Amino acid sequence: MRKLPLHPGARGLDDDCAILEIGNETLILTHDMMAEGTHFQEGGDLADAAWKLVAVNLSDLASKGAEPIGLLLGHSLGSGDERFLEGLYEALSAHDVPLLGGDTIKTTGKRAFGLTAIGRASHTPVPSRCGAQIGDQLYVTGLLGCAMLGFEGDPEHLAAYNRPTPRLIEGQALAPHVSAMMDISDGLMLDTFRMASASEVSIAIDSALVPVASNKRRNECMRWGEDYELLFTLPLETEPPVDCMRIGTVEPQGFAPLIFDSNPVVNPEGLGYQH
Amino acid sequence: MRKLPLHPGARGLDDDCAILEIGNETLILTHDMMAEGTHFQEGGDLADAAWKLVAVNLSDLASKGAEPIGLLLGHSLGSGDERFLEGLYEALSAHDVPLLGGDTIKTTGKRAFGLTAIGRASHTPVPSRCGAQIGDQLYVTGLLGCAMLGFEGDPEHLAAYNRPTPRLIEGQALAPHVSAMMDISDGLMLDTFRMASASEVSIAIDSALVPVASNKRRNECMRWGEDYELLFTLPLETEPPVDCMRIGTVEPQGFAPLIFDSNPVVNPEGLGYQH
Repeated sequence: MRKLPLHPGARGLDDDCAILEIGNETLILTHDMMAEGTHFQEGGDLADAAWKLVAVNLSDLASKGAEPIGLLLGHSLGSGDERFLEGLYEALSAHDVPLLGGDTIKTTGKRAFGLTAIGRASHTPVPSRCGAQIGDQLYVTGLLGCAMLGFEGDPEHLAAYNRPTPRLIEGQALAPHVSAMMDISDGLMLDTFRMASASEVSIAIDSALVPVASNKRRNECMRWGEDYELLFTLPLETEPPVDCMRIGTVEPQGFAPLIFDSNPVVNPEGLGYQH
Repeated sequence: MRKLPLHPGARGLDDDCAILEIGNETLILTHDMMAEGTHFQEGGDLADAAWKLVAVNLSDLASKGAEPIGLLLGHSLGSGDERFLEGLYEALSAHDVPLLGGDTIKTTGKRAFGLTAIGRASHTPVPSRCGAQIGDQLYVTGLLGCAMLGFEGDPEHLAAYNRPTPRLIEGQALAPHVSAMMDISDGLMLDTFRMASASEVSIAIDSALVPVASNKRRNECMRWGEDYELLFTLPLETEPPVDCMRIGTVEPQGFAPLIFDSNPVVNPEGLGYQH
């Protein structure tokens, strides 16, 4: 796809969002798709699927410090549509973001839903995953592994998996301060690996500092995705303006993008969830 | 869906596009989806599917007189992806519109593609389908029924079906002059019926004036969709600035939205292609 005619705001398709300068505003655009059997289960509650579709897209906006403006939905009709609409209603209301439009189609097989989210940058330059600087500190919001436990049926963490909360407020508070920021959709380790690669640095994580939902399963919590927390770097002297934990340090680029408890990690394979 | 929290620019979801005022610019946004087995055939050339996905969305922008800015693609992976990319490349190049971003997913069943097109209004107020005024004249660009003949295998019209051309230049030329405008995706008769209903008028079509690809099959040509021509109304005294044919007149709202060769049409059922 990188060989296609690309808009400069596409940032080479390396980022989660596109950036569009319009007049004196900067828009942030993202599109995510979910398919039955891959991203949500057949027979599952489509209210959760709808919520998640909204949350995943808004989480991309959050990682850019954007305020949501509106959403465009691509919806394939089928059973459970009433529940889908209920979940959509709840997600739009909870995040105070309106629907702008979209398309509804008939399909003959499994279903797919697409969502485009449009937001307004609250701060420019817009944060990206490629700005981490040597000496910066690495931080994460929230608790990792909650989605994993929810997926496994833990009643305390069901909401984390079915109804994740995009960190919109935190993203806006952080945008003026961070050197790099992204949301954790594919697991802390893989996403840190990606941030380090994009920033052409190495990032060292001290696993004992990582806030996890289950101490016994610390390693899994750092590899499982779908927590939609924010991962970001700040200069050493900057006090984080949101609740978060310091979990690592940005180092000069070595042969391994990720250094995990002093062990260099060269290969992203198996580090996390690859869609 | 109309009960969901809607953005004012969604125009109550009654229009093909959303309108977004950003700073001193007006953006036009649209999203269309295509599914295997419904909108394109299994085993068909995905280069055509990709082209059509782009064309259908740009045709929506054309009906608003918008200049395209960029596209976001939702793509489900599978066989024929190389052809899909080739068709996408051709469509982006032909219409000089870049890719802004998107998402690529794995699916287990039939495939679906979604596209969001973003454009800039070349004229405000942005044309809509609801502005037709009594005494206006109804016009259409191009020749209707070409897509039907192409679908049936007529070699002369294959491109009309597989590679439709969105009327972007015509849409921009018309935008400052039209009282109402839309693209014909579902057939002339059904779409005229919709324009009349939205404008709270009746519209009389003189079928003998309608430019069709096959005189013997005039009626079918007016009911078959996918020609993506522009349908618009102009005040009586306004000379159309593009190649087009005058095919009817806007009349006071009677009991039938559409008057076809003096016969009132009350029911849209069977008038055209209903997705």
